[in-house]
Amino acid sequence: MTAEAAFIDSLRAFATDPAARGLIDDAAVLDVGGETLVLTHDMIVEGVHFLPGDPPADVAWKLVAVNLSDLAAKGARPLGVLLGFTLGDEGWDRTFAEGLGAALTAFGLPLLGGDTVSAPARMLGLTAIGRATGPVPSRAGARPGDLLWVSGTIGDAGAGLKALRGEIARSDALVERYRNPRPRLEAGERLAPRVSAMMDVSDGLLIDAARMAAASACGIEIALDAVPLSDAYLAACGEARLEAAVAGDDYELLFAAGPDTAPALLALAEEIGLPFSRIGRCAAGAGLTLSEAGVPVPLPPRLGFEHGGGTNG
Amino acid sequence: MTAEAAFIDSLRAFATDPAARGLIDDAAVLDVGGETLVLTHDMIVEGVHFLPGDPPADVAWKLVAVNLSDLAAKGARPLGVLLGFTLGDEGWDRTFAEGLGAALTAFGLPLLGGDTVSAPARMLGLTAIGRATGPVPSRAGARPGDLLWVSGTIGDAGAGLKALRGEIARSDALVERYRNPRPRLEAGERLAPRVSAMMDVSDGLLIDAARMAAASACGIEIALDAVPLSDAYLAACGEARLEAAVAGDDYELLFAAGPDTAPALLALAEEIGLPFSRIGRCAAGAGLTLSEAGVPVPLPPRLGFEHGGGTNG
Repeated sequence: MTAEAAFIDSLRAFATDPAARGLIDDAAVLDVGGETLVLTHDMIVEGVHFLPGDPPADVAWKLVAVNLSDLAAKGARPLGVLLGFTLGDEGWDRTFAEGLGAALTAFGLPLLGGDTVSAPARMLGLTAIGRATGPVPSRAGARPGDLLWVSGTIGDAGAGLKALRGEIARSDALVERYRNPRPRLEAGERLAPRVSAMMDVSDGLLIDAARMAAASACGIEIALDAVPLSDAYLAACGEARLEAAVAGDDYELLFAAGPDTAPALLALAEEIGLPFSRIGRCAAGAGLTLSEAGVPVPLPPRLGFEHGGGTNG
Repeated sequence: MTAEAAFIDSLRAFATDPAARGLIDDAAVLDVGGETLVLTHDMIVEGVHFLPGDPPADVAWKLVAVNLSDLAAKGARPLGVLLGFTLGDEGWDRTFAEGLGAALTAFGLPLLGGDTVSAPARMLGLTAIGRATGPVPSRAGARPGDLLWVSGTIGDAGAGLKALRGEIARSDALVERYRNPRPRLEAGERLAPRVSAMMDVSDGLLIDAARMAAASACGIEIALDAVPLSDAYLAACGEARLEAAVAGDDYELLFAAGPDTAPALLALAEEIGLPFSRIGRCAAGAGLTLSEAGVPVPLPPRLGFEHGGGTNG
């Protein structure tokens, strides 16, 4: 057990309220006055979740986007955010504030409050509050026989980070996916009533799928050749599907749904202009298994990132 | 303008939703489905808000208490919390988790979710969600003619910190007030319908009173000789009322109310067993003025702490 898993395990004893969803979901789900509130808190740390040289406005965008991605995965529409901010360099802070304003404006969201502190390191937290008007899918609802789907394309953000590090040729499209992820809010809201389980892909497709399998107490089989890659990714990295599947920072939606819903899901994807790809299925048993062209493939030693997983996504 | 004030000022442009209360209040107030939710997010940083040698369980208590104190000041009853945690030393983290559990159990509160991250410094954030069933007093409602009150005693926590630093003789009662502040939840809930303005005293009585005066666009006069001191404080520090009034970390309630409510307030104090002291009044004009035995006293150069003020208390 990692230190993080041990810590979260020790918290679970007093997270027994149903709203906490056993600390295995992307967000908390709280019923208040007949309304369903969805709450998430994610932090990003300089040198861990973003690079010291990243433009502050992009850091602000990412902070908002990673939190809204958790709300998207629960089918919730965001209502507002609270900011936790470490004061540092005045110029950096000012540009961050402008970027935060631009991100909140883009999503039509108010800043509701928060806290600013002096600190020896740059670390930013955001609490996002959303409202769901229908069922709130958990990670734990996948059933044997369900198909497994993912939205958009996988691996772009990871390739963007590689490009920024000079490990592959620069690609603006990939860097944009790393720095300005787009939470799939509309897709999440529309998918929520149709899926049996849903979560966002933040730490890597494989590790997040393994988490869904564990939470749902079923097995998940992923066909690597079905993992959707963008043209920009293919141009930069070729058909490196395994690398894409462990890269992280995708902020796409991973969801399981009964096979009879497939036509409705494909029609929805068409309607909102975001592809949904069928990448595998849920089966009796436990854990994650991989195949390529129908042939079993061993799991790689690393399925994604552990450090940023969080108690709630 | 301090760097913090400038940063918060730059955030204000996109905190125009009424729920944000212009980022001058202790918490955000959000109407959801006919219910009134109160939301606050406060962070504490090692070396800034707590000492590296402080017992982890006390740090956990303080993290919970400072956030619940903001809810108390808005008359809200807490529903649950989200934790932002930086993983570090496993032993420290385990003891912290136990202490967090004890604090949440003491307040009958569930942990709803949060995030754990790797980080180069220890910094903890908590989002507390509460519900108000009546009016939610702001900092901005004080009116000329109102009396100014404070709950409990002032200066104990600051003296406890001095005792821990060896600057004064050790006093368990004072150290307890520094390490284990008691948010005034019952008092806040009972006071909320009766006051014109309320906030908690976190950064120092004088600086917080000056903030109430500024938010309310009135003057506030404080009679230093009326500032309530505990027996433990008097024994350790004597009648050092000005030091008490700028010490911070009190987590008492500061409130303004019309003079005709005084009998009801005193009866309430009696009923809940927490003294309320009348320490001054609100007047036409602006800013904070001090007196002692009826004679004007100049303001000290420092009214309290700036660093932890936060965008929302």
